[in-house]
Amino acid sequence: MAELRLRKDPLQLLAREYREMNGTHVEVLPEPPSALEFSRLVHISRPVLIQRLELPAHRLWSDQYLIKKLSSQHLSVAVTPDGRADAIHTGPDGLDYFVEPLVEKLTIQELLNQISNGENGVYYLQSQNGNMFSSGDDDDGLHISEFDCLRSDIVSEIDWCTDALGRQREAVNIWIGNGKSVTSFHSDPYENIYSVVRGEKRFTLIPPTDGWSLQERFYPHARFTRSSPDGPLEITPSSEDTPLVRWSSLPDRNLLESLPANVRPIQVTVRPGQAMYLPVGWWHHVEQSDETTIALNWWYDAESQGLQWAVLRALREAEHVPKANEKDSA
Amino acid sequence: MAELRLRKDPLQLLAREYREMNGTHVEVLPEPPSALEFSRLVHISRPVLIQRLELPAHRLWSDQYLIKKLSSQHLSVAVTPDGRADAIHTGPDGLDYFVEPLVEKLTIQELLNQISNGENGVYYLQSQNGNMFSSGDDDDGLHISEFDCLRSDIVSEIDWCTDALGRQREAVNIWIGNGKSVTSFHSDPYENIYSVVRGEKRFTLIPPTDGWSLQERFYPHARFTRSSPDGPLEITPSSEDTPLVRWSSLPDRNLLESLPANVRPIQVTVRPGQAMYLPVGWWHHVEQSDETTIALNWWYDAESQGLQWAVLRALREAEHVPKANEKDSA
Repeated sequence: MAELRLRKDPLQLLAREYREMNGTHVEVLPEPPSALEFSRLVHISRPVLIQRLELPAHRLWSDQYLIKKLSSQHLSVAVTPDGRADAIHTGPDGLDYFVEPLVEKLTIQELLNQISNGENGVYYLQSQNGNMFSSGDDDDGLHISEFDCLRSDIVSEIDWCTDALGRQREAVNIWIGNGKSVTSFHSDPYENIYSVVRGEKRFTLIPPTDGWSLQERFYPHARFTRSSPDGPLEITPSSEDTPLVRWSSLPDRNLLESLPANVRPIQVTVRPGQAMYLPVGWWHHVEQSDETTIALNWWYDAESQGLQWAVLRALREAEHVPKANEKDSA
Repeated sequence: MAELRLRKDPLQLLAREYREMNGTHVEVLPEPPSALEFSRLVHISRPVLIQRLELPAHRLWSDQYLIKKLSSQHLSVAVTPDGRADAIHTGPDGLDYFVEPLVEKLTIQELLNQISNGENGVYYLQSQNGNMFSSGDDDDGLHISEFDCLRSDIVSEIDWCTDALGRQREAVNIWIGNGKSVTSFHSDPYENIYSVVRGEKRFTLIPPTDGWSLQERFYPHARFTRSSPDGPLEITPSSEDTPLVRWSSLPDRNLLESLPANVRPIQVTVRPGQAMYLPVGWWHHVEQSDETTIALNWWYDAESQGLQWAVLRALREAEHVPKANEKDSA
């Protein structure tokens, strides 16, 4: 019996309401919040820059210290020709692919050398699998982190975040790279605390309500490979039954000029001793300073009860996302 | 350049996601939450029943006590022919109106008599203007409440709610009526703590995402009036420049049968010593027990930063709401 008559495109209406009511302001906290203060910030779900989030890592993690501690431990490092891992590249067949990096095992000494002087690819430690701590640690104690010996320099939980959300963190990651590496626009299904130890991270942020502006497409999957240990990196398409990957088609260079005029990205630079709260569903594009940049992040599962999660899902499902490489997808 | 291509009706998609992920579960807390616990509940924004919210009013507010305390104080009471104040009625001209009640000034003794035995209209104390406490109190101390002498029997703030939201309450209201009075489906722009002192309140709740199912229309405004102090109640249309009122066209009787089959209302009964958290934007239809029912509620301004408020606004703005009394609005 009930029939819904629409007055306007609801997604564009929501995007406009959100922009008009929230602008591009980013709150800066002079020190980490209490759990109650952070709980209110999670409800608001806007990025926040937090000063004075201090860990032993901030004073300890010189190259020398890392080389001594990590010694001959082999670390999983992403290698790409141009610093664009998990990004869209054109394959040798002229088609566009979502391309995952080659993963090589390097010692920290080799990694630091490659970051500053490497000529055979861009190296970025970005394994994102809870390489410092992962939720598996709590279950069996058998998960072995490549960074086990650095664990005591950080914290496995951000207390005020754990208390605010009422749950333990899902994963803690370490990221090591420099200005050659860029992270393409994407969003994560996690509440994220992102802390910088050395160097700078520069985030370009877009709210979930403006996700439509990122021009997502479904791309075939590929990986960078080498046919010999020192050979050039090549794009190797994955088998045809590998699921297509939904990803933004915006370029990583000239990014801002590629966004629609009504979308107003927020730019936030995170420096050593600072952290950023990056709320669930926020789109982020990340650049780094030229010097060696080390960052940490704590991922917490987002709240799936209530309005926010349903809105984030509906925003993703309502949009028709074309396949890449088809004439009508231009 | 960016063009949004819709796959499905986003509002129906959101309504379905919300229903599938949240069901009709209502959490029951054995005692009032801490501020941090409540802050998480505000983020989830689902109704919660809270046990053991106890105030002096719960043991004090017998008829006898109220008559003694309020004495000859005149109270603003809503009068309607059938217990439906702020509701849709058909006027003498055959048109449908949003009709506000007649307001009469009665002593508490007169009100209690009218509630149990009145034959010349249904009486319900529902002034909703912060009749116990209002935000004006804090500014000049000059606001005079009709219930001033009962203030010490309740609290002006719900501490855990004030602390969770980080703001003071906007208004505290007292409601006195019985089963003859029903409150039509509506939503409020407030976070609401609703506590029952005597009797029972029975709420039928619909999430903001299913507001489309309430078949809102724009109605001309009217009031109940009497041409003589004991005369019958009549509907008097307001002047033509009175703004139209957007209101649900669902009936107050046979309510559940009038809702679409895919909408699953939540029914919550609140009894003495219990309170309900009714989140901002939730639609509620309220019935009372036959005995004299006394309730209190604390309204807090909702958070206007972030996603939730923008979603609530967009849900309201996206829908085309027809004018009532027009052929094509059926």
